Amino acid sequence: MANITKKVSWSSRGDESGGGERTPLLNGSEEVRYSRQLSGDGGMFHIGRLSTVDLEEDMTSDEDSVRGCPKEIPHNEKLLSLKYESLDYDNSENQLFLEEERRMSFLGFKCLEISRWVICGLIGFLTGLIACCIDIAVENLAGLKYYVVKQNIEKFTEVGGLSISLILWAVLNSAFVMVGAVIVAFFEPGAAGSGIPQIKCYLNGVKIPRVVRLKTLVVKVCGVICSVAGGLAVGKEGPMIHSGAVVAAGVSQGRSTSLKKDFKIFEYFRRDTEKRDFVSAGAAAGVSAAFGAPVGGVLFSLEEGASFWNQMLTWRIFFASMISTFTLNFFLSIYNNKPGDLSSPGLINFGRFESDSVAYNLYEIPLFIVMGAAGGLLGALFNTLNYWLTIFRIRYVHRPCLQVMEAMLVAAVTATVSFAMIYFSNDCQPLGPDQSEDYPLQLFCADGEYNSMATAFFNTPERSVRSLFHNPPGSYNPLTLSLFTLTYFFLACWTYGLTVSAGVFIPSLLIGAAWGRLFGILLAAITPNGSVWAVPGKYALMGAAAQLGGIVRMTLSLTVIMVEATGNVTYGLPIMLVLLTAKIVGDYFVEGLYDIHIKLQSVPFLHLEAPATSHWLTAREVMGAPVTCFNRIEKVGTIVDVLSNTSTNHNGFPVVVPVAASDDLGKICGLILRSQLIVLLKHKVFVELARSRLTQRKLQLKDFRDAYPRFPPIQSIHVSQDERECMMDLTEFMNPTPYTVPQETSLPRVFKLFRALGLRHLVVVDSENRVVGLVTRKDLARYHLGKHGLEEMQLAQT
Amino acid sequence: MANITKKVSWSSRGDESGGGERTPLLNGSEEVRYSRQLSGDGGMFHIGRLSTVDLEEDMTSDEDSVRGCPKEIPHNEKLLSLKYESLDYDNSENQLFLEEERRMSFLGFKCLEISRWVICGLIGFLTGLIACCIDIAVENLAGLKYYVVKQNIEKFTEVGGLSISLILWAVLNSAFVMVGAVIVAFFEPGAAGSGIPQIKCYLNGVKIPRVVRLKTLVVKVCGVICSVAGGLAVGKEGPMIHSGAVVAAGVSQGRSTSLKKDFKIFEYFRRDTEKRDFVSAGAAAGVSAAFGAPVGGVLFSLEEGASFWNQMLTWRIFFASMISTFTLNFFLSIYNNKPGDLSSPGLINFGRFESDSVAYNLYEIPLFIVMGAAGGLLGALFNTLNYWLTIFRIRYVHRPCLQVMEAMLVAAVTATVSFAMIYFSNDCQPLGPDQSEDYPLQLFCADGEYNSMATAFFNTPERSVRSLFHNPPGSYNPLTLSLFTLTYFFLACWTYGLTVSAGVFIPSLLIGAAWGRLFGILLAAITPNGSVWAVPGKYALMGAAAQLGGIVRMTLSLTVIMVEATGNVTYGLPIMLVLLTAKIVGDYFVEGLYDIHIKLQSVPFLHLEAPATSHWLTAREVMGAPVTCFNRIEKVGTIVDVLSNTSTNHNGFPVVVPVAASDDLGKICGLILRSQLIVLLKHKVFVELARSRLTQRKLQLKDFRDAYPRFPPIQSIHVSQDERECMMDLTEFMNPTPYTVPQETSLPRVFKLFRALGLRHLVVVDSENRVVGLVTRKDLARYHLGKHGLEEMQLAQT
Repeated sequence: MANITKKVSWSSRGDESGGGERTPLLNGSEEVRYSRQLSGDGGMFHIGRLSTVDLEEDMTSDEDSVRGCPKEIPHNEKLLSLKYESLDYDNSENQLFLEEERRMSFLGFKCLEISRWVICGLIGFLTGLIACCIDIAVENLAGLKYYVVKQNIEKFTEVGGLSISLILWAVLNSAFVMVGAVIVAFFEPGAAGSGIPQIKCYLNGVKIPRVVRLKTLVVKVCGVICSVAGGLAVGKEGPMIHSGAVVAAGVSQGRSTSLKKDFKIFEYFRRDTEKRDFVSAGAAAGVSAAFGAPVGGVLFSLEEGASFWNQMLTWRIFFASMISTFTLNFFLSIYNNKPGDLSSPGLINFGRFESDSVAYNLYEIPLFIVMGAAGGLLGALFNTLNYWLTIFRIRYVHRPCLQVMEAMLVAAVTATVSFAMIYFSNDCQPLGPDQSEDYPLQLFCADGEYNSMATAFFNTPERSVRSLFHNPPGSYNPLTLSLFTLTYFFLACWTYGLTVSAGVFIPSLLIGAAWGRLFGILLAAITPNGSVWAVPGKYALMGAAAQLGGIVRMTLSLTVIMVEATGNVTYGLPIMLVLLTAKIVGDYFVEGLYDIHIKLQSVPFLHLEAPATSHWLTAREVMGAPVTCFNRIEKVGTIVDVLSNTSTNHNGFPVVVPVAASDDLGKICGLILRSQLIVLLKHKVFVELARSRLTQRKLQLKDFRDAYPRFPPIQSIHVSQDERECMMDLTEFMNPTPYTVPQETSLPRVFKLFRALGLRHLVVVDSENRVVGLVTRKDLARYHLGKHGLEEMQLAQT
Repeated sequence: MANITKKVSWSSRGDESGGGERTPLLNGSEEVRYSRQLSGDGGMFHIGRLSTVDLEEDMTSDEDSVRGCPKEIPHNEKLLSLKYESLDYDNSENQLFLEEERRMSFLGFKCLEISRWVICGLIGFLTGLIACCIDIAVENLAGLKYYVVKQNIEKFTEVGGLSISLILWAVLNSAFVMVGAVIVAFFEPGAAGSGIPQIKCYLNGVKIPRVVRLKTLVVKVCGVICSVAGGLAVGKEGPMIHSGAVVAAGVSQGRSTSLKKDFKIFEYFRRDTEKRDFVSAGAAAGVSAAFGAPVGGVLFSLEEGASFWNQMLTWRIFFASMISTFTLNFFLSIYNNKPGDLSSPGLINFGRFESDSVAYNLYEIPLFIVMGAAGGLLGALFNTLNYWLTIFRIRYVHRPCLQVMEAMLVAAVTATVSFAMIYFSNDCQPLGPDQSEDYPLQLFCADGEYNSMATAFFNTPERSVRSLFHNPPGSYNPLTLSLFTLTYFFLACWTYGLTVSAGVFIPSLLIGAAWGRLFGILLAAITPNGSVWAVPGKYALMGAAAQLGGIVRMTLSLTVIMVEATGNVTYGLPIMLVLLTAKIVGDYFVEGLYDIHIKLQSVPFLHLEAPATSHWLTAREVMGAPVTCFNRIEKVGTIVDVLSNTSTNHNGFPVVVPVAASDDLGKICGLILRSQLIVLLKHKVFVELARSRLTQRKLQLKDFRDAYPRFPPIQSIHVSQDERECMMDLTEFMNPTPYTVPQETSLPRVFKLFRALGLRHLVVVDSENRVVGLVTRKDLARYHLGKHGLEEMQLAQT
């Protein structure tokens, strides 16, 4: 084995690659706290990767400081976990693959293309169907619950003893939530939360374990029904995106590993490249079903996932989105006994904003921008609170039964607070003829009137949002709205991160709509002529956009989603301005909610561009070295030893040809993956030294596809002592043309290549094409712009 | 000069890069007509590039065959012109650039980012303003014309002598068109047509001469006003896209080379990378202003241009689009005396389709698909006819005065045909109270009635489209519609390609709306209960989408544009299905209209992916060789000689270090562009051999930026005989880390790298890092999938 252990020595590199002139350029970088010192012989790379023990000690000491002063960010946020692997978005164009492609006729490629469309249609259809099931289940369960509680309240309002109603409500809520929390906590913890951070990571190219499994889907769907029906401050939209992604991952592979069922179709798509494309389509279909926003879905997928714009892929994504919203619409219209009425395209429907009734004027734009800033501030507050809460949960609430109990507690508290708010509110509104409330609570109001606070609390969040947008001016009094905003803000903040599957979109919209409407009412009151133009519904919409933007910080896709959900393109510009302002203001304080959760998981997430001030770093400083390489014909024992070495756990190995002159660094001639080696070992593709080479068993691409995606660990493969002495010929299986860069390439250039092509390993070579290093996702994700310029995160085995 | 003239000999490559196993893989490629034979020593590359004389002979012999049998595609469609150069979308990260980037602080990058947003805002604003001017000018001029003609017709209807009205109409039309044609033909031929093919090419990375000049913009705007007011079968939407792009190219550079005015701002953006990004934004703003479709604009730009998805860029594009549609809306609302009524967001407004009035049912979807197929067929017919016409025009109508005369002839014929159709039509409709016609012609109809044919012909095309979409059932009788479709189809086909600036969107929509409405009327007549669900306006919309899709073949962006223009997301799925069907059916026969025109210009257009069956080609077969290389310190005379060699006209030169062992192939150490060498020569950055190196004048990046984009030709730079003996040190100016690929890389892999990073030159190296070839855009654009599998186009100096 040509294990290249010699350190790269700068002095030996001569002047043929500009090495001489490089040193003065680094002068400008003194202000950067650059933790890694290059020792004399170029060693001591990756301090972070080696000093796991030190870091753990750091963490315990940090814990105290966090408890004392939670403002200080604990150390583990600056870590990247080594447990996450990348997806192979770059095809391994080895001889097997090329032979297959060359054998395939033009018609064969056409058939593949048609299968892709069929799969996307299926993805859209199934995602729409799931959304439809969730919607119907939630509506019926919540309807039943509210009906029972309403009956109970009405019964006890006059005779007294409303505390029984409260207990009933709280128990019903807790029961629903308990079911939801138990299945998540005990069966599939991966189904917790909205799933959007996980899908973001997956589309970014990080392999998150168990994220696209069938079991996750089942638990997610049941869990979200329970948590919404249980009255938590959550939405069912985020989980839809995750569900769509799982459907896509399942359908596109033509088999279920969990159910051990292989339909023997779509075998060509059994690799990361194709699967990730389909998962993009699934996520888009999910967005589309959730918000009735097919274009928004496409843009969401592109914003989060695609680094390389592929026109055909985008069309397919769009097709899946269209089918998804159409399916949902179609089945809901049948369910509502109005077949053919395709007017409720998504799970949440903002109702129709007519341009003539709520047009905006030029002078309102500054007001919208102010609202955006407020949304950014409130969003930052929300995220900071949730961040602390999450840290707390990671430390103290990690046992499943504790998690279930916390979820039940939140459910009970939500019911209690809601009840108290309704009970103490005296905002009575006349019950008009065009009353759209589903469960109007009279409570202590006069006959023919209803309790206005109850329209906000005694309802599913989706309906509350719509009421805030569309109810006529005067439906809510300012005090009701302020109290509602205040309580719901803290409830939603507490709820996000519980061990239930639930999204944060709707609660954010609801908080924003409430304070936005409040803002509109105040405007109408204090400005002359304000009641004419300051329509509360319009300000509720802007507030909702601002709050959502302040929390999740998406811009482009969110604008389009909001525009599609309101069905009115006129609001495009103000919504965009509001979202931009919220993002700018919020980013000043703290990151978006999803990014915080991704960071807390120490996921090596690659942003779109390298940090702006990173031009002074080159591949030489960034890369990992020394690199473990294999020879083209390698001893089986060596391969098994390298793969079994848990301390390195490398996944890609350059294949080299030894150079006669120097026996330390080999010349690159290919790249082979751990997964490929595992398959080769499993099928015993060995050449015995005594026999001729022809006895090597011929492997097919099919063997690799059958093993995908759950390659067995090296420990499960038994290699006898005799076999260890055999040789393995890697020529046919390695990628003979891996991408390489010279050592002097600047970090932004390396980053661009890596990101644009979705690489997993990028080989760094010297001017003689000898392997000197390997750049992986973690080497690039480490650098980020902090408060004090460029900072470097550390790698740890968490 | 290390001019590498030794041919690459395969046998010398040894077995370290899999060369031995490569040959059998090529066996499957026998069916491909592969014109280039590799002779024994690997020479005879690029037959096409060398045999220009042969090709010209081919063309003359082809001409006869075309005249005799126009079905056969003439030879020049299979050519790629060498006159088109690529844009440098890959930054040349030389030492100057890196020094500047490293000097720049984080705040500096922030300021740049803010400038980018400001520029995009300006682009949107100016594009909206231009759209507004065009709209107002067209409306007034056309209004005046129709008023005069209407008066005249009314005067002569009763007394007889309508031929005078006809002559008046024809003369007015011809006069307008003459003005439009004269300025285009004599002042700026680049402003002809819709400009979309040119912008497509520019965004694809091809430098089209004069396409983003100020003069082009002025001529384009005046030209489109004249041609629309002149009653041609054209729209003003396509030219808006071109106008937006020119505005963007101008604003982003902070100077006008034509006006010789330099504002000394935005100097950082004076390179192809940045400029192309802004041009994307400009094109999107143009679409947005034309159709009131900001999201459609973004998708148009992405579909046509962006290969690399850049989130920040997309936001800025979206911002420019938003500002553009807002500006247009705002100024039009002031012009229409309804300030604040932001309900006409684009130049064309399809009017509002209310979901409840024109919902569709599941069983209508097959009907829509049939319409899509019909649109595809009609589109293919349109494109084929226009293709022959264009061939005819290229050969016989190339003198400006002939072009003007043709345009005037078309204008007169259009007026005559329209008049005849109106005259002989007896489709009289009652003049209702909600009459939305602007110029109702009574003609021979009874009092209180108007001529229905005149609503289609005696109107600007935009208004006709809207009438076809929204007029109540029964407004048109089937005969009127059939006659209109027939005549307008041929008029529009004849008109596209005239030397006037005009778009094809609106005529396509109009033709489609007419036959779509006809289809709807027939459906209503022949099916039971058809009059209830077969609303003609709905079918007019689908027909319009089908026809437009059949002609231009855009799918994603067009769907979104149509959805945004109708303001109804419910139609998304059917419109998408219609467009997809139209594309599939149309593509079976002939390419899209824009692609045909691009091909006829022999532009080396890179599609999104390499042809599917091209895996058997490798970089070795694709690359151009031998490559002209320079040494790191090169003699000025050598450089001047190479640059002056008009027969090669290379634009990028690898910089090499000679290898001691073999004196033929140098080892790559950088890449330098012709434009950089020109600037170096112009500033006399020479090292005299006698003196020390310190005397070399220090060049700044500013010097390169000032010269951008019109670098002087080498002939204009005087280099004395003494100076020819000096040396030039290229180290500081070359890109030290050009992207390289090994020779065995498959074409799809090369293509992907090239397209994803927007490269202009890709160096092919052997296993020793020695330069063996260079891949450029033309090497990749040559391969395309024809009827008989993979075909190769030839390169010619046209």
